[in-house]
Amino acid sequence: MKALLLVSYDGTGFSGWQRQPNGRTVQQVMEEAAERAFSRPVTLTASGRTDAGVHALGQVVEGEFPDHIPPAKLRECLNVHLPPDVKVIKSVPAPESFDVTRAAKRKTYCYRAYYAESELPLFSRYAARLKGRPDVKKMQEACALLVGEHDFAAFRAAGYTSKTSVRTLYSVQIEEKPIPEGALYTLRVTGNGFLYNMVRILAGEVFAVGCGKQEGISRAFQTGERSALALTMPPQGLVLVSADYGIESLLP
Amino acid sequence: MKALLLVSYDGTGFSGWQRQPNGRTVQQVMEEAAERAFSRPVTLTASGRTDAGVHALGQVVEGEFPDHIPPAKLRECLNVHLPPDVKVIKSVPAPESFDVTRAAKRKTYCYRAYYAESELPLFSRYAARLKGRPDVKKMQEACALLVGEHDFAAFRAAGYTSKTSVRTLYSVQIEEKPIPEGALYTLRVTGNGFLYNMVRILAGEVFAVGCGKQEGISRAFQTGERSALALTMPPQGLVLVSADYGIESLLP
Repeated sequence: MKALLLVSYDGTGFSGWQRQPNGRTVQQVMEEAAERAFSRPVTLTASGRTDAGVHALGQVVEGEFPDHIPPAKLRECLNVHLPPDVKVIKSVPAPESFDVTRAAKRKTYCYRAYYAESELPLFSRYAARLKGRPDVKKMQEACALLVGEHDFAAFRAAGYTSKTSVRTLYSVQIEEKPIPEGALYTLRVTGNGFLYNMVRILAGEVFAVGCGKQEGISRAFQTGERSALALTMPPQGLVLVSADYGIESLLP
Repeated sequence: MKALLLVSYDGTGFSGWQRQPNGRTVQQVMEEAAERAFSRPVTLTASGRTDAGVHALGQVVEGEFPDHIPPAKLRECLNVHLPPDVKVIKSVPAPESFDVTRAAKRKTYCYRAYYAESELPLFSRYAARLKGRPDVKKMQEACALLVGEHDFAAFRAAGYTSKTSVRTLYSVQIEEKPIPEGALYTLRVTGNGFLYNMVRILAGEVFAVGCGKQEGISRAFQTGERSALALTMPPQGLVLVSADYGIESLLP
């Protein structure tokens, strides 16, 4: 029986989602937990891979589970065998035709970064540090340029390809919060799909423009040149917030 | 020369602020860093002790430092020798008569807790988990009862005394944010002083009232009985946000 798991993890101790010969990954830890829970191998597929160090609040994972277990009970069965840094939040049945890698209607990511003259221990696990204090108005202008259907070919790590690099971003918003002697910025991006490293490249450009870089987004859209944009942000600031499948509509 | 340090730490790896025969504490780690930086022993005093596992965004720490170092440079001198979980954000000179344990005009604490059916790895380091989903309106009513000048004798861990247990709370506010299949609550409390464990006891009562407990605050104020109130919340949800001395007014 096919089921979907809503999964939350702290990426700090993982080499990303996907199984690797070396390195502890979320897929491996979850598949091992499933094998212990159900005494048989289970293959799990995520809505999308997350890189080493990237977090997930609401990753969606698909798998085939034993028929005699009510789908709603999968959560508890798996959590008993999972370590503290990855947990299943919810489990629901899914039609056999469902494809978690294709069916997502939209995904939302958050990227957090802070400006402060010193490192801030309470933020360093879940945010990147900016060397300058960005101008919020400039960042909002950069965000506005990103909204809509565009060819995001320039917003992709070198060496990765996919059929098309056209994606639609429904919303790109930046929020500022004061912290002692500095500020915390949360960039929230919702779109119909994302290329490899797209959010971290996009965040790098938004923060760089805020800190005085000339805006390279327009040229990046025209030319597809990665070099028009600023450096990729580090992984610890990124959280996959949700992958929206209209899961409620799957429920009986 | 006397100086004040604005200090931020992740309390997870510390047995609280105060030096202990066993256990790694913030005071010990900072005093050792200061001795390495200035080649002489330095005694540091905080605006107030924080317990094991409690975090600080803006703790204020006082010490005597070598005269030849500009106070603004103390931050960098100390940070070089400090581990990643404690850093100095700012350093300023202070008058010799200044007393960091007495001079604070007001302090602000945050307590974070979340409701979810499973543990959430991204919150477990900086928030406590609630077993039920609290009613925000009931919590707001409980918060309103706490504001003002009261005898908080009942809001103190057993065995601890101080001259008076009368304190004034200027503001007690609760905020709710949605998270997948649950909610995150931030309780923010500002007052002129706090008794031992006062915020964690106060938070325990507010969350318990939200989850259906009969409000015990009125009786606690009348009788001073700890038993009128719910259990003390665990430390990891607590952050000392700021201790306000009007530090700017100290600057030349």
